[in-house]
Amino acid sequence: MTVVSPDVNRVGCPSRVILEHVTSRWGVLVLVALLDRSYRFSELRRHIEGVSEKMLAQTLQSLERDGFVHRAAQPVIPPRVDYSLTPLGTEAATHVRSITEWVESKVPEVQNARLEYDEART
Amino acid sequence: MTVVSPDVNRVGCPSRVILEHVTSRWGVLVLVALLDRSYRFSELRRHIEGVSEKMLAQTLQSLERDGFVHRAAQPVIPPRVDYSLTPLGTEAATHVRSITEWVESKVPEVQNARLEYDEART
Repeated sequence: MTVVSPDVNRVGCPSRVILEHVTSRWGVLVLVALLDRSYRFSELRRHIEGVSEKMLAQTLQSLERDGFVHRAAQPVIPPRVDYSLTPLGTEAATHVRSITEWVESKVPEVQNARLEYDEART
Repeated sequence: MTVVSPDVNRVGCPSRVILEHVTSRWGVLVLVALLDRSYRFSELRRHIEGVSEKMLAQTLQSLERDGFVHRAAQPVIPPRVDYSLTPLGTEAATHVRSITEWVESKVPEVQNARLEYDEART
């Protein structure tokens, strides 16, 4: 029996699909939001501008299935569902937040690089 | 004049587009590959299984324009182009690699979570 270590560069490696959930457009923003506190669905939709109801529901479901997000239906009227991170999701979100924070801090550098790139080609 | 800090949760914030380049399906894998060494186009295509020529070219071009990747056309025959990381790209890639390594190390945990999720729903 050959044991192959997970490798995101291989087609069909399960790590690649997990990576795509964690780094998906909305997956990133959901993980980072939930690192601060738990959210209700409608709150998350307001917090993450531009996400559709359908995409947010799909994203939350795949993160829940992967074990990153915990979904708690509260026994209240009107019904209320809270989303929070599991310990595994907290680890994922911590890595992801280091990227979003870095990106937010480097906007001017990237914009300058783009100007140079575009100028060199006109 | 109002100065607004970059926020990946805002529609139209330039940080969101940069984040999408850095965390795109192929952007992640290109950045992590180039953290080890420079690659030629054809080498990268072999290293990152499943990427099409077109998607790899688009990914490299957007990472180059953002200032993360340096493209060096070598004055040799036959023509040869080497891709490597800039200092800014090395920073991005270091953050990104912490995610890919974490994901590769957590495959069994995620697979167990999925089994539990699926079993609870059958």
